[in-house]
Order: sequence, then C-alpha cells, then structure tokens
Amino acid sequence: MLTLHHAPGSRADRILWLLEEMGLEYELNSMAFHPKDLKTDEHKARHPLGRVPVLDDGETRLFESGAIAEYLLSRYGDGTLRPDEASPLFPQYLQWFHYAEGTMMPPINTIVTHTILLPPERRNQEMLDMAQRLAGKVLVPIEAQVADKDYLIGDFSGADIMLGHAMVVCGRLKLVTDNHPNLKAYIERIKGRPAFIKALGS
Amino acid sequence: MLTLHHAPGSRADRILWLLEEMGLEYELNSMAFHPKDLKTDEHKARHPLGRVPVLDDGETRLFESGAIAEYLLSRYGDGTLRPDEASPLFPQYLQWFHYAEGTMMPPINTIVTHTILLPPERRNQEMLDMAQRLAGKVLVPIEAQVADKDYLIGDFSGADIMLGHAMVVCGRLKLVTDNHPNLKAYIERIKGRPAFIKALGS
Repeated sequence: MLTLHHAPGSRADRILWLLEEMGLEYELNSMAFHPKDLKTDEHKARHPLGRVPVLDDGETRLFESGAIAEYLLSRYGDGTLRPDEASPLFPQYLQWFHYAEGTMMPPINTIVTHTILLPPERRNQEMLDMAQRLAGKVLVPIEAQVADKDYLIGDFSGADIMLGHAMVVCGRLKLVTDNHPNLKAYIERIKGRPAFIKALGS
Repeated sequence: MLTLHHAPGSRADRILWLLEEMGLEYELNSMAFHPKDLKTDEHKARHPLGRVPVLDDGETRLFESGAIAEYLLSRYGDGTLRPDEASPLFPQYLQWFHYAEGTMMPPINTIVTHTILLPPERRNQEMLDMAQRLAGKVLVPIEAQVADKDYLIGDFSGADIMLGHAMVVCGRLKLVTDNHPNLKAYIERIKGRPAFIKALGS
C-alpha cells in the first residue's frame, strides 16, 4: 500500500495530484503545514528535516517530490505521463521537469519567505524585489513553451506535475500577469483537470 | 557529437565531470561565468536565460544539469552509475539525486548571493545567517548517509554527481566543519576520483 505523508500548500501537493492522475490507491496522512505536525519526533523519523512529501510503499520510504514523482512513474506508470527514453520528446520532458526545482523554485522560495513565512519586521524589500524580477525572467521561457501547446511537451506529463504546480503557485503569488496570456491559459487547463480538482480542489 | 556549453564554477561542472566519469567524447565550449559570455545573443539562443550547462547531442539540445545528467545516463550509461529501476537502491538513488536541487542548493544559492555575487553594500547579514543555519541542518542527513558508505547509495552513482558536487561547493564555502567528519572524507573521496581531477582539477 502507498502512503503519502502530506501537508496542504507544500510540494506534497504535487504527489497528491500525481497519485490522482495515475489512478493509484493510497492512504493519506494529512498534516498541517506547521511545526506542531511536521517537526515532531514521529515525522522526523520519516524525514530528518521534518518536511513533506514523504512516500511509503511497503518497506520503501523516500522523500523529495521530484524523486517520488520519478519513482511512481517508473514503478507504476506503465509508460504513461512520460515519453519513452528513445523519444525525441524525452530530453524536453527532462528539461522542464528539472526546470521546476533547478530554476523556477529558487526565486519562489525567496518570495514566499519575504511575503508569508517571515514576520513583517524581518522581511527584506530588496531581496523580495530581486526575487520578483528574477521570477519574471524565469517565467518567460515557460510562457513561450506553452504558446502553441496544451502542456509543456504537448501531452500532459510528469513535467506538468512539477513545473505546472510551480505555475499554480506563481499564479497565487500574482507573478502571472497580463504579459503571460499563454501561462494563464495553461494554469487554467491544469486547474480544470479532474485529478487536480479531486486532489487539490478548484 | 556531444557539445557541452560550460562555465567553470557553475552547475555545468557537474556535467563536465559526468562526461569524464562515463568516458564519453565531447567538445567543450568553455565560457567565462560572466555576463559578457553568458548573456550574449549567441548563448541566449542556446538558453533563453543565458545559463549553463547546455548540452547539444546532434540536433538535440537541452539545459538543466539534472536533466542533462539523466539524459546522458539514460542514453549512454548502459546501466552504469545508476541502479536498475527494479533495484531496492533505486528510490534511494532518486532521493539523493533530487535532494541536491530540491533541498541543498536553495540555502547555498542564498549564501553565494550574499558572500560573492552581490556587492558588499547590498549583502544582507540576516539573510546570510538564516541560510547558513539552514545549510547546517540540511547537511546533517547527508553526514549520516555517508557514515558507513563510500558514496551516497554505496557505489558511486549519478546521485554523487548532483549532491557530491553540492558538497564540494559546501566545502569551498566553509560549511563543512569538524562536526562533519564523514562528509569531509566523502568530499576527499570525490575530489580524488580521476574523472573529477581530469574534469575539474585537484
């Protein structure tokens, strides 16, 4: 049995959504995104830093949303949601999958830190401005990529789980503007997917 | 023919090292880690943000070091440097591979920003202190992981390319201290590998 250790509003949402896209059965251990749930001895035994997601698959346990997504697609995907390794789409799939944590999330992390996580007196406007400028630049290639496609490599794939989730977060942070008509439409497509709605609401 | 677009001291070092570990032939387009080389029209045609690494493999072009590493191992690895997907080591491999960008690099990015990239008058000591505390916490699980193993999952693998490179960077940033004897030894093992020395020097 698969068990997902989850807290809403975190990267664990990616895995909850993926499990629904794949139609897999799972148990959900739903915690608050708060130290009172995540920094307990019980949860630190699952993840030494008290983070989510963590996936249990029988005796197998792993963390990191990118790792869990790759694991689920490899073990249970049966060739869906990612191109065959011999396909010319495979390098593109990998590129956009990794763009999420490698390029898009660093400025988002900073923006979340300086708008939500830190108390107002410790937020730094210059750091926030820098991160918002960088996020704007980093969105440009994604806006171009979905100009003529429904999803990042055409058909919906694991890359849309990773980077599409980051785009939904960018939408919430008001980083997606009228300068990003294709991204806006892409985010609406994602938020309209039945599995997304079932996992994360509308 | 493989061509790696590279700048020393960047994440492109991971790919240069991996190419040597795999014994692949490649051409190297070596640029300075400086806007005068990276933010040119020529290089922005390869990567819209003017970043490295970028890999060309004939007509195939992709960026993101994690994506390029996965691509090379998939297309040319012949089963080396990563466990078979059915192996019990595979989830661990994925976890530590993704820990590099998902968990380790965010505080490193902040530390580099506030010690090297920004001019001294714009550096923020509080942000630097926060990132250094976080980096210290994030190192703890890696220190534990290599306590009884030469490499992250036992044998050397692609996970050591991604996270091992991040550890070498942590060493340079003086984040690895006498509290991390296993990490120190791990970094020395990495820096002693012939492919590492050939790619990146001693």
